[in-house]
Amino acid sequence: MGSLPIGSRVSIALLHYPVYDRNSRVVATAVTNLDLHDIARMARTFGLFRYYVVTPVEEQRILAERIRAHWQDGWGGSYNPDRRSALELLQVAPDMDTVLADIEDCYKRPARIVVTGAKERPGVISFDGLRRRVQDEEGPFLLLFGTGWGLTDELFERADFVLEPIKGAGEYNHLSVRSAAAIIMDRLLGQR
Amino acid sequence: MGSLPIGSRVSIALLHYPVYDRNSRVVATAVTNLDLHDIARMARTFGLFRYYVVTPVEEQRILAERIRAHWQDGWGGSYNPDRRSALELLQVAPDMDTVLADIEDCYKRPARIVVTGAKERPGVISFDGLRRRVQDEEGPFLLLFGTGWGLTDELFERADFVLEPIKGAGEYNHLSVRSAAAIIMDRLLGQR
Repeated sequence: MGSLPIGSRVSIALLHYPVYDRNSRVVATAVTNLDLHDIARMARTFGLFRYYVVTPVEEQRILAERIRAHWQDGWGGSYNPDRRSALELLQVAPDMDTVLADIEDCYKRPARIVVTGAKERPGVISFDGLRRRVQDEEGPFLLLFGTGWGLTDELFERADFVLEPIKGAGEYNHLSVRSAAAIIMDRLLGQR
Repeated sequence: MGSLPIGSRVSIALLHYPVYDRNSRVVATAVTNLDLHDIARMARTFGLFRYYVVTPVEEQRILAERIRAHWQDGWGGSYNPDRRSALELLQVAPDMDTVLADIEDCYKRPARIVVTGAKERPGVISFDGLRRRVQDEEGPFLLLFGTGWGLTDELFERADFVLEPIKGAGEYNHLSVRSAAAIIMDRLLGQR
């Protein structure tokens, strides 16, 4: 896939499970309409391969599929072709294994898993380090984002890379997942 | 204000009027709950001075004030103190002149107005150029973001600076205002 833009080596997954709630219990969060739109538009802007929305709850997958279909095949697609082109990247999946199998099926290579989070952790990869890897290696890379209070420790253990957190002006680091994903995509793939 | 973080020289305003709709008509758009939260959390993360939500529609200002009050004084503030601390930055205003007067009143100097948009325009300032100005000058700076299909030409004419657009991997440049604001804040004020 050498002639494609760099972003086509990268996919993004928004996980609604397994994530923590505010009391560190593992829960499934609800799919949010704006998460689908904002992150799909961002994925299209940076030339990503796919944007996976992951939830084990069937009703939530049906809801996400319905939103995708409205903007892709339905009235929304002709009303707003730009939105259609973004939501083409959206894939709804029940779990991480389905996502990984889909990526391996397309690239004939397994994905390198990169987890993101707001907390400081040992052994993280820097933004510059990951940007260089994405430029130098063929991928595929899969970036995981958590909803709720963040991805479970189990996912951090399963990852090939843990990306350093975004630092702001002080201690406050409570960006929405939409804002964090935008900043991370820009730092990894943005034109400077 | 020399001992404060650099971000305290910068405020952000989200304009719901005057902006274009998809047919280039000047309209007032509706206030969106997530715009208040996402951009307030981002403004707190990057240490901004204030986040102004601007709409001439009184009902919309009341709605925005009610959301602010819920998270600041009401039940939400004790449930989620991080959200409270973000929404402290939120100010609801009827128009740009009120915003400019508020900033001048606080800093005893008028704001330098920076407009943002997705279109290519002549005479723009680069991200690096504006980042240096924010570091070297005391400000205050006011960054304007438009809802709908973007800020009107009149606002571009009134500005001291027009910021270059964010470029993605190709022609597609339809980021949400939330994503664009996050990327712009990070490029101007993020720790590298």
